[in-house]
Amino acid sequence: MNILIKNADVLLFTDNDSIIKKKDIAIEGNIIKYIGDVPEDLKFDKIIDAKDKIAMPGLINTHTHIAMSLFRNYADDLLFWEWLHDKVLPIEKKMVAEDVYWGSMLTIAELIKSGVTCFNDMYFFMDEVAKAVSKSKIRASLSISTTGFSDDTEKDLEAIRKFYNDYHGTDNNRITTMIAPHAPYTCSPEYLKKLKDLSSELDVRLHIHVSESKTEIEESFEKYGKSPVKHLYDLGIFERPTLAAHCVHVSDDDIEILYNNNVNVLNNPGSNLKLANGFAPVDKMIKRGINVALATDGSCSNNNVNMFEEINLAAIINKGINEDSLSISASTALKMGTINGAKALGMQNEIGSLEIGKKADLILIDTKKPHFYPKHNLLSSLVYSAQASDVDTVIVDGNILMENCELKTIDIEEVMFNIEKCATNLIKEN
Amino acid sequence: MNILIKNADVLLFTDNDSIIKKKDIAIEGNIIKYIGDVPEDLKFDKIIDAKDKIAMPGLINTHTHIAMSLFRNYADDLLFWEWLHDKVLPIEKKMVAEDVYWGSMLTIAELIKSGVTCFNDMYFFMDEVAKAVSKSKIRASLSISTTGFSDDTEKDLEAIRKFYNDYHGTDNNRITTMIAPHAPYTCSPEYLKKLKDLSSELDVRLHIHVSESKTEIEESFEKYGKSPVKHLYDLGIFERPTLAAHCVHVSDDDIEILYNNNVNVLNNPGSNLKLANGFAPVDKMIKRGINVALATDGSCSNNNVNMFEEINLAAIINKGINEDSLSISASTALKMGTINGAKALGMQNEIGSLEIGKKADLILIDTKKPHFYPKHNLLSSLVYSAQASDVDTVIVDGNILMENCELKTIDIEEVMFNIEKCATNLIKEN
Repeated sequence: MNILIKNADVLLFTDNDSIIKKKDIAIEGNIIKYIGDVPEDLKFDKIIDAKDKIAMPGLINTHTHIAMSLFRNYADDLLFWEWLHDKVLPIEKKMVAEDVYWGSMLTIAELIKSGVTCFNDMYFFMDEVAKAVSKSKIRASLSISTTGFSDDTEKDLEAIRKFYNDYHGTDNNRITTMIAPHAPYTCSPEYLKKLKDLSSELDVRLHIHVSESKTEIEESFEKYGKSPVKHLYDLGIFERPTLAAHCVHVSDDDIEILYNNNVNVLNNPGSNLKLANGFAPVDKMIKRGINVALATDGSCSNNNVNMFEEINLAAIINKGINEDSLSISASTALKMGTINGAKALGMQNEIGSLEIGKKADLILIDTKKPHFYPKHNLLSSLVYSAQASDVDTVIVDGNILMENCELKTIDIEEVMFNIEKCATNLIKEN
Repeated sequence: MNILIKNADVLLFTDNDSIIKKKDIAIEGNIIKYIGDVPEDLKFDKIIDAKDKIAMPGLINTHTHIAMSLFRNYADDLLFWEWLHDKVLPIEKKMVAEDVYWGSMLTIAELIKSGVTCFNDMYFFMDEVAKAVSKSKIRASLSISTTGFSDDTEKDLEAIRKFYNDYHGTDNNRITTMIAPHAPYTCSPEYLKKLKDLSSELDVRLHIHVSESKTEIEESFEKYGKSPVKHLYDLGIFERPTLAAHCVHVSDDDIEILYNNNVNVLNNPGSNLKLANGFAPVDKMIKRGINVALATDGSCSNNNVNMFEEINLAAIINKGINEDSLSISASTALKMGTINGAKALGMQNEIGSLEIGKKADLILIDTKKPHFYPKHNLLSSLVYSAQASDVDTVIVDGNILMENCELKTIDIEEVMFNIEKCATNLIKEN
């Protein structure tokens, strides 16, 4: 389908800043063909009038466990170990494929409604997540979360290889895969090395939780005499392109290692605060030259997948913690939520910004609302004033997934009915 | 008008917690007449089906400068002094009554849309703010912000007395007034004492900025040899009921003074972060027994008046900064945004919670949206998952100000047209 978006306020990135300019955007199939002067003789299947709307790259949520929406608001205001051992783990043990499917569909609906066009997920029953991605037509990178606790790690590696073979590059390349060792404290050094080798063999990236809590750091020093980052480095993990989720408690030495090895950091400000893990040194890492992208984590520790909240948090929290009102500007926060995410996924030539030749993954924000007025600075308003509910239209790979706030690929009534059924069953038996 | 709200999930406060129970609510005139069993023979002018909706007390925004929406997104990512001296002050000097009126109408529209039923404002051209409050039918406590910089402070005191006479208790008591010395660093000790005496004479409360920035503390020690809190205490200011906005940089001694003098603290987490002032010790103040309420501050330092964001911030930031996942529970955060605000205003017997005999200031939240599912815990969802845009219906003093997300007392198109005109003129001349 060819789509013309007329009169949009278009968010464009420059090297050191971002600007918003009134332009038309022409989409041919799944590609952005023109931004600005669109030849008059072109034919379009659909013309969208984007007056009073900002066109911006779709948000990229780089670290999620989307099916955990099943536990949303189920385990709040608890100590971490109660949260994990008394609440989350007992239910996860009982979950079946159907639960993961409906949990995924629910979160994908929420992702689309809040302007996310691509997410990076690690969990289990990942075939179900892939099925939900395929049906909803969102873009995703999917990985089986794997630990060294298994009886038969060879079988686990085989399952990961099969998942890659079944899904990597499918659905017009909207689905890709990674290898996801859960964390340095749940995977043995030997198993981590095997996963690294598999990532070389399949030529896919590694996605892993790193340095999320203080306890993790203490235990790493006790067990290995070094930080989790140094431990992974010494094992050679970072020879492969790696996405390290959290990196809250990282030392200056850790930051040097992350920088020197081009490790991508996935910052989850909301989850880190809610679980009382603290504040990642985002400004310091970005100034050192590390690619820091944004994420929501799962809905059991956040409790939504609202990337507009995370973009706002990234901008204001780093100002507060660094006592510096110049820390993480609006432009930087928006890049963290878009192009930096694309870089982390290795897809910066395809998505993450509005550029001619890139995939048509974009969203329209309705600015005809009181909280956008007066319109002194639309860029600023996206970070400091906007809400997820201002997202009006979502296009992924040239397909319209939402228009006028209405989902086009998901029957949301069916999803809400089924998620309530799944959740009730899981809790009842607990 | 008599209104019956049927089948709502009603948020009710207990001493140490909050609960949500399915109930009907009957409103007679401007009073909540029944919660639960509503006599069958009662007649209603309007029946609202609140299935899939939470009924909760309207939010109370305890510290605002609502007309500053004129500068929304006009002065971001700047150093504080550039923000104030290069951007805000030059424009404030040129503002006329009409600017304040339209700035107020814009923010009141935003307040209503995000579930606020009462706000506490200090600024100038306050007759215009009162006019906007009267027209929109929201509830407000209004004060002329006053400093000791004036040539004729006697005239200023007279203007405050006149404002009290003109507005205090008007509009069915929806408008009340306070005395608002701007801050200990902008008012001389003598002037502060005169304002305190006037507050005794008129029997109204004091609303003042206190200990917002580190610079303020340093300057107070240089000039008076003590903290701003101690300075105000020594002047006898706290003998009057006082609302102290911010209290970011308060020592343990300051906290003792605030507690012993029943000073109400107005916490502005979003503004304090964005302006890089830091984190108020909210948990410590609440544990000591201080009444801490929530606020957004003006839209030039936030940049919206979204109280759902502040409630969320209060819950997650205090967990992060105290490294304690039990810090500021969902229930506490909701009380900060409602009943604690009512206490600060001295109106806890009239508003701030849903109780029989209280004023009908309440809102309905539409929970038939993906981010509320599955519905494990609605209380939690209000703090950790909800967005301001989930507010569906707003009732103040028994009047419906919004229904199905549609404003009933404000022509929003007219407001957006006029605010754009005012803002353009102010900036053009700058």
